[in-house]
Amino acid sequence: MKTVCLVVGAGAGIGAHVARKFASSGYHTCVTRRTNQDGLDQLVDQIKRSDGEATGFLSNIAKENSIEELVLEIEESIGPIEVVVYNIGAQIGDRSLKETSAKMFEVGWRLGTFGLFRLASILLPLMEKRGSGNLLVTSATASMRGNAGQHSHASAMAGRRMLCQTLNAEYGAKGIHICHIVIDGIVDAPDTVGLMLGPEKFEALRQERGMDKDGLLLPSAVAETYLNITRQHRSAWTHELDIRPFSELPWWNSEKLSL
Amino acid sequence: MKTVCLVVGAGAGIGAHVARKFASSGYHTCVTRRTNQDGLDQLVDQIKRSDGEATGFLSNIAKENSIEELVLEIEESIGPIEVVVYNIGAQIGDRSLKETSAKMFEVGWRLGTFGLFRLASILLPLMEKRGSGNLLVTSATASMRGNAGQHSHASAMAGRRMLCQTLNAEYGAKGIHICHIVIDGIVDAPDTVGLMLGPEKFEALRQERGMDKDGLLLPSAVAETYLNITRQHRSAWTHELDIRPFSELPWWNSEKLSL
Amino acid sequence: MKTVCLVVGAGAGIGAHVARKFASSGYHTCVTRRTNQDGLDQLVDQIKRSDGEATGFLSNIAKENSIEELVLEIEESIGPIEVVVYNIGAQIGDRSLKETSAKMFEVGWRLGTFGLFRLASILLPLMEKRGSGNLLVTSATASMRGNAGQHSHASAMAGRRMLCQTLNAEYGAKGIHICHIVIDGIVDAPDTVGLMLGPEKFEALRQERGMDKDGLLLPSAVAETYLNITRQHRSAWTHELDIRPFSELPWWNSEKLSL
Amino acid sequence: MKTVCLVVGAGAGIGAHVARKFASSGYHTCVTRRTNQDGLDQLVDQIKRSDGEATGFLSNIAKENSIEELVLEIEESIGPIEVVVYNIGAQIGDRSLKETSAKMFEVGWRLGTFGLFRLASILLPLMEKRGSGNLLVTSATASMRGNAGQHSHASAMAGRRMLCQTLNAEYGAKGIHICHIVIDGIVDAPDTVGLMLGPEKFEALRQERGMDKDGLLLPSAVAETYLNITRQHRSAWTHELDIRPFSELPWWNSEKLSL
Repeated sequence: MKTVCLVVGAGAGIGAHVARKFASSGYHTCVTRRTNQDGLDQLVDQIKRSDGEATGFLSNIAKENSIEELVLEIEESIGPIEVVVYNIGAQIGDRSLKETSAKMFEVGWRLGTFGLFRLASILLPLMEKRGSGNLLVTSATASMRGNAGQHSHASAMAGRRMLCQTLNAEYGAKGIHICHIVIDGIVDAPDTVGLMLGPEKFEALRQERGMDKDGLLLPSAVAETYLNITRQHRSAWTHELDIRPFSELPWWNSEKLSL
Repeated sequence: MKTVCLVVGAGAGIGAHVARKFASSGYHTCVTRRTNQDGLDQLVDQIKRSDGEATGFLSNIAKENSIEELVLEIEESIGPIEVVVYNIGAQIGDRSLKETSAKMFEVGWRLGTFGLFRLASILLPLMEKRGSGNLLVTSATASMRGNAGQHSHASAMAGRRMLCQTLNAEYGAKGIHICHIVIDGIVDAPDTVGLMLGPEKFEALRQERGMDKDGLLLPSAVAETYLNITRQHRSAWTHELDIRPFSELPWWNSEKLSL
Repeated sequence: MKTVCLVVGAGAGIGAHVARKFASSGYHTCVTRRTNQDGLDQLVDQIKRSDGEATGFLSNIAKENSIEELVLEIEESIGPIEVVVYNIGAQIGDRSLKETSAKMFEVGWRLGTFGLFRLASILLPLMEKRGSGNLLVTSATASMRGNAGQHSHASAMAGRRMLCQTLNAEYGAKGIHICHIVIDGIVDAPDTVGLMLGPEKFEALRQERGMDKDGLLLPSAVAETYLNITRQHRSAWTHELDIRPFSELPWWNSEKLSL
Repeated sequence: MKTVCLVVGAGAGIGAHVARKFASSGYHTCVTRRTNQDGLDQLVDQIKRSDGEATGFLSNIAKENSIEELVLEIEESIGPIEVVVYNIGAQIGDRSLKETSAKMFEVGWRLGTFGLFRLASILLPLMEKRGSGNLLVTSATASMRGNAGQHSHASAMAGRRMLCQTLNAEYGAKGIHICHIVIDGIVDAPDTVGLMLGPEKFEALRQERGMDKDGLLLPSAVAETYLNITRQHRSAWTHELDIRPFSELPWWNSEKLSL
């Protein structure tokens, strides 16, 4: 049996790079995404070509029992999940209240908050039996304050953040390291930010802030910090930290693009 | 047509006292609760006997279209809602993760966050047309930090808080006063706290902290502050404040009973 | 002996209006400012012409023993101080680190934090003996987050905020109501904002946001809330609240003018 | 010329271990402490015996020009300071307001806030010229909320925190990484905690929580995280994080020992 790192939501941004990083550190890395079998296969192949181990799963976290069955399948057929990264976004761009349907609002919560609850419910008791484990939760500026047009996203992310606190209050002392990671900047990610902006605007953004200007979050750099969090000695754990480009003002100093 | 104050969730605690307070200040007060027609009638009678105006509605906020239809009915048949108080609790007591079913977690969100979103979606556009209105949101310690056993409640209340921020960011400048009120103590409320504790424990708590010791929040005193918030001049509005008994330490200084 | 409200720092903005408000509510109001005997006399006269009682003191809070002696003198010759408002600002405008001398930084702390500590040290034990009292502390956006150029102001105001928390933790249960009031907008105050901006810019700001647009904080409206805080029943006290114009975004949604 | 890491406040706890960690990573490490030449020499010797480079300085940060001269001396005679760690504590234990003299309160600020301002004022402009640098600031629970008896410490630490925010707002985009590190637990440090508690109580605490229970922060584990912060790629910097033992509840869930 291998020691597993499961990355829930492994597109081409933070998720994919975190997956590679943990694979190159010796974990059998399981990666999921909702759609795009080709993209998933490519990621698994990349990892394997770098002498890592990986298995891919198409999985719709919003579907009943999806994450529950996935966790049990991995634990049974691959190995114990020592690290799980919840990397599901719920950003739908800025929408006025009128443009935010009840359905959208609910989907935001299902992806933003409820999916994490379901993942924790199935996996933390397994980790508890083993006396150790890591739950890393990618989160967003919107978990810290609500901006105009972010009705769905902000309330879902605040729920996510608070859930990390209640999980930590119950499972920290049982040896499970839960970390809420506030991504407070725009990620250089064609799969998410790129799709939201469209190719032209994304390229312009890259020219303006990215590349050698380092004003967009490099997912590989973010992944480095994720790995380090899991390596902290249990006498000195971090429960919450923020990550942003050096040239970006923090959320408390600026109005942010909602990306 | 009367000017209406609608209190969503008017049991025998804060909701009932807020309803009385606004009624005695000249509002036609509409009060809702999920069950207990008798309790509802009593409240309406009390208000009327004090020369106030009130109408009661049994209404299950969790039910589709319930709050939407209620708002439209009141606006049509009674008058414009100038003040709305969202006073629905979602506390289910401390429960470990294993004891918190997906269903419970979802109900917590439906009452804690989603109901407020639905209320805002139907009512704020009407207030916007009138250029004024007040949305007062009763909230809890759990909106500020997650404690052990509060998985459902804390994430729902954090979602509630953040939704107040996004609503304020969109509707504040349109003249709608949105206020998130952090009730950070135990309310002297037989209907909620009393039911949760049972009559004996509740009486003991009252003896220990309540009565002339003023260590439990008197709902009538809380109501006074609710009224004052709606009276603030628009050049000097409060968006968030905390309320607790003088003898109670704030959430950042103490472990709290989850009530 | 009269019941006294002492306003430390009563220029023509919040301080003066708070003084008038408490005077018109029956307090003998003692007002201090550092300089400008004429301005002080005018304020005292205004209060008296409105049938209020007031006494003015020129007092430099930064000077050793100044506040200590003032408090003792008032308690002895006028009456017990039931309400004290610490309304001393420490804003010096945006200055880069290089432009912020050690002296400036220290003055910021002396006015922003240390003065409040000294006031509390002399007065809270007196209030404790009486079993009641109110300490209202005017504070600023900068107490919540540090913006560029605000090295002196932000660290002093954060110290002020935290001191309010430690004072509350010790004196709340002794019946002393301590409230930290976050003024999160520009006050329509010729004496402070006006002086900082100069008359032309201030007038332009007034035309743009103030007057009937209500986009500048009216000090009289702010004063209303100060009075209401002291009237809260002790079972339902507020320790912290924010105040801003309806059309102003909160600090967590915007970059603010440092005023 | 060597690349220097300067640790201001290097007793036997976090400071000493951070110094060793950076020395073993190739920095010439300069260490200061206020008193105890022997302890200082021992630390320097330990580092040298492990093939590291170190220089020790007795230096009283509270003294005028002390830190300023030290920085200039190091920059001139040893090398450019690439990493500076401000590790000066200001804890004086829980003291009631009456037991907290104005002098104590001022000393708290001089060590807690002002020393950091002076260090930043002399060093950040030098780092700015080089386009890079790291300022790591050890901070405390008290920077986040004020507890009873912490008047001096909490207001000084809140000032420290806010100063980190204003420094970051000005210097982040200039390539200087400023990180505020919230140490939210008791450090297994004979020099600070041990001295405060006395040898017997400290030993009891170690037996109860420390040793293989890992309930006290191991300074060597903390140091690992300090090093990793300076290694973050500039596209993905952390400005604030908390560190506590796995078995310790965060400040927002518990009343803490003030250590």
